[in-house]
Amino acid sequence: MPSASASRKSQEKPREIMDAAEDYAKERYGISSMIQSQEKPDRVLALVKDLTVQKADEVVWVRARVHTSRAKGKQCFLVLRQQQFNVQALVAVGDHASRQMVKFAANINKESIVDVEGVVRKANQKIGSCTQQDVELHVQKIYVISLAEPRLPLQLDDAVRPEVEGEETSTSQAIFRLQSGICYLFRETLINKSFVEIQTPKIISAASEGGANVFTVSYFKNNAYLAQSPQLYKQMCICADFEKVFCIGPVFRAEDSNTHRHLTEFVGLDIEMAFNYHYHEVLEEIADTLVQIFKGLQERFQTEIQTVNKQFPCEPFKFLEPTLRLEYCEALAMLREAGVEMGDEEDLSTPNEKLLGRLVKEKYDTDFYILDKYPLAVRPFYTMPDPRNPKQSNSYDMFMRGEEILSGAQRIHDPQLLTERALHHGIDLEKIKAYIDSFRFGAPPHAGGGIGLERVTMLFLGLHNVRQTSMFPRDPKRLTP
Amino acid sequence: MPSASASRKSQEKPREIMDAAEDYAKERYGISSMIQSQEKPDRVLALVKDLTVQKADEVVWVRARVHTSRAKGKQCFLVLRQQQFNVQALVAVGDHASRQMVKFAANINKESIVDVEGVVRKANQKIGSCTQQDVELHVQKIYVISLAEPRLPLQLDDAVRPEVEGEETSTSQAIFRLQSGICYLFRETLINKSFVEIQTPKIISAASEGGANVFTVSYFKNNAYLAQSPQLYKQMCICADFEKVFCIGPVFRAEDSNTHRHLTEFVGLDIEMAFNYHYHEVLEEIADTLVQIFKGLQERFQTEIQTVNKQFPCEPFKFLEPTLRLEYCEALAMLREAGVEMGDEEDLSTPNEKLLGRLVKEKYDTDFYILDKYPLAVRPFYTMPDPRNPKQSNSYDMFMRGEEILSGAQRIHDPQLLTERALHHGIDLEKIKAYIDSFRFGAPPHAGGGIGLERVTMLFLGLHNVRQTSMFPRDPKRLTP
Repeated sequence: MPSASASRKSQEKPREIMDAAEDYAKERYGISSMIQSQEKPDRVLALVKDLTVQKADEVVWVRARVHTSRAKGKQCFLVLRQQQFNVQALVAVGDHASRQMVKFAANINKESIVDVEGVVRKANQKIGSCTQQDVELHVQKIYVISLAEPRLPLQLDDAVRPEVEGEETSTSQAIFRLQSGICYLFRETLINKSFVEIQTPKIISAASEGGANVFTVSYFKNNAYLAQSPQLYKQMCICADFEKVFCIGPVFRAEDSNTHRHLTEFVGLDIEMAFNYHYHEVLEEIADTLVQIFKGLQERFQTEIQTVNKQFPCEPFKFLEPTLRLEYCEALAMLREAGVEMGDEEDLSTPNEKLLGRLVKEKYDTDFYILDKYPLAVRPFYTMPDPRNPKQSNSYDMFMRGEEILSGAQRIHDPQLLTERALHHGIDLEKIKAYIDSFRFGAPPHAGGGIGLERVTMLFLGLHNVRQTSMFPRDPKRLTP
Repeated sequence: MPSASASRKSQEKPREIMDAAEDYAKERYGISSMIQSQEKPDRVLALVKDLTVQKADEVVWVRARVHTSRAKGKQCFLVLRQQQFNVQALVAVGDHASRQMVKFAANINKESIVDVEGVVRKANQKIGSCTQQDVELHVQKIYVISLAEPRLPLQLDDAVRPEVEGEETSTSQAIFRLQSGICYLFRETLINKSFVEIQTPKIISAASEGGANVFTVSYFKNNAYLAQSPQLYKQMCICADFEKVFCIGPVFRAEDSNTHRHLTEFVGLDIEMAFNYHYHEVLEEIADTLVQIFKGLQERFQTEIQTVNKQFPCEPFKFLEPTLRLEYCEALAMLREAGVEMGDEEDLSTPNEKLLGRLVKEKYDTDFYILDKYPLAVRPFYTMPDPRNPKQSNSYDMFMRGEEILSGAQRIHDPQLLTERALHHGIDLEKIKAYIDSFRFGAPPHAGGGIGLERVTMLFLGLHNVRQTSMFPRDPKRLTP
């Protein structure tokens, strides 16, 4: 199907070359006709990552992007890239390639996709600039499958298509492959623990948590809102006896926060679970799920971790089994010992969270821990008070490298106590009537929490901005692409 | 922790009983104090589904809902329900239970959650009304853990909490457990095929497909829109060399359609994949993914399928391997032979789709097939024309029981042809500039499609309304709960 004569109008430069007369190699290169599924050839395409000395002297076909090209006399060196792997290819004047063919190869716009037939040859010396260091490909045929225009898009997202010259392309590939792994490990672990995946609606009729920071949607002739959390729906599923549920989906926050860790739309990994006697049953399931994710990533995604580390060096992520659980008052004591002045019922500021992360790392050598028993005063109205201490609550946050990645609690499952707590918080009961009514028909005791996917990815890899771990980040100033 | 003396103010009826004097069983029943995670007892709770003759004469603790209760002289029969399983329990005046305790048990509001200690006894005869037909539980202690109010919620969704007396609770449980299985099998299959899961944004700056049927969102001081499809983002990932991607997430359609199969928010299972030579490479991967889902459901979810069938009888879902692929012109011939009058470039109406489904079932004995090569005229502008026949296109739909569940195509990856086709469709090029520009930098040939999760669940189970397979359905008239 690739054919030297099938040039297309828009691609003037290669055509000019191909028009040259007396070219003994003219069938061996050119612009392929557009792949419109005309044929089903049985040609097998090799993967760049499989080009090793085991394949020495074999003839292979490869489809890859032209990462770089460099003409040098009668030769042209190309680096061919396929995802995070690349290999050096050589087009040299000789039996297979003519002078015109070398010139054609040298003039292919970078990032164009080419089909290359070549012989795998053991390299005389290690090729340091490529992932396939021990071989090079001696090109016999080269056809352009998809021609790139000779410049880079300006409006495409830098996370997806950054500077081509650097390592960013491989880094982005690695980050998002690892992120896919987090989602997979999260589900795999929970399905093995007999959780049921649920789908919760994103368009809702009333603002879920009091109405602040919520996006409004025009819904036919009325207004609706975007869900800030799937919590109500997770809890309804618990009330409907699903016992253990999780969901993965977008969460919307209309907060005008322009920080390294806030997005207006992020992916929530949410868990809710009925328990028998103590919310620590849930706490332990969640912590174990995160530990399984960390382990799975370190076992199955070392290539990706190392690729990211090359551009963004970072210490490996450390965690303990079982997970370290500190009570809020213990954390306060550690902070006070380090000179921080804080009240017993005061929430942690971001700098104090980070400082605490460092103190915990020094003392316990872990990047992951649970902070349990937050002051009741700093948690939402539906948080179960601690029966042993009215100023505390059965609630917790989890931290990675000193930053919060999960917030959760035992929820109040008794409608009377829920009503009392809502009134205490000055919440209009009318607005949360449906929520309170959910618990009037025998609700099991339950707890849960929500994890931010982009934060987990960022902190596991030791990155510093959540925009690096969102393919298409949304913040108050950014809605494209 | 359960304690007869710990009654709560709001629960007057049981308290009255407990106030009765001279009750030798008074420590053996009552309203438990609210579970606030006071203690961590090491009591093990048995599962209702595990109560079989193997456990005969064992003493077990069970936490379950009171499904029904029926007092009969000195005895009270309870049916205790746990998700889709239930068991008969007997409280009878004797050594363990007093007259007051039997009365207490008989008066517990249905749907209340109770902790019961009892002896598992082999039943004298099969208990036809319960899933655990061979045993009954002889109750020694009974405590209410969470008391239901004595009526049913009106505003809770019928899919989640329908009439308690019927089989609907078990049916809903089974439907949504099976739906969770569809999501799991979809991912498992694709991860095994080296696909990468991606997360695409739902808030977008421009209406993706021309602007019709799109919900508008207030985004800080501007307007934004809810994504009608992740297609642009899937395609950008293909352009960024992710090769094979999938995503699962909400899809929003502001269509004022009030049918059995339309929702304004549904869950899309989306696939996009680069291919080498022919879009059938992708078609086959998608069809195989669906086949793996069907097989996995039939292997792992027989209990759920049978539970649903009890209330909604239906033939088992049939499919072929490899999947039947018909071309549009073949389907037209079948329809015409059946008396339908249709033009060559006319789209299928819903009744004709259904009729075709019946004809295909008769002829090929399959409930699942692919319809390939749709007329170019009835497909979106980005659909790749068929190079062999300018009136056809490289596009396809997939059907289950005669209803469409997936629509897909080879996409045009060449910006020049894409521009021509957009102009042909009268589309304003300015509005799709970012989309077209995505393909200027060397796009691999690719194809994909989007599957509606609720439809797959509905049609696999032979149900007749997509609202039965959405926990919290959204349509033009329904936004709650």
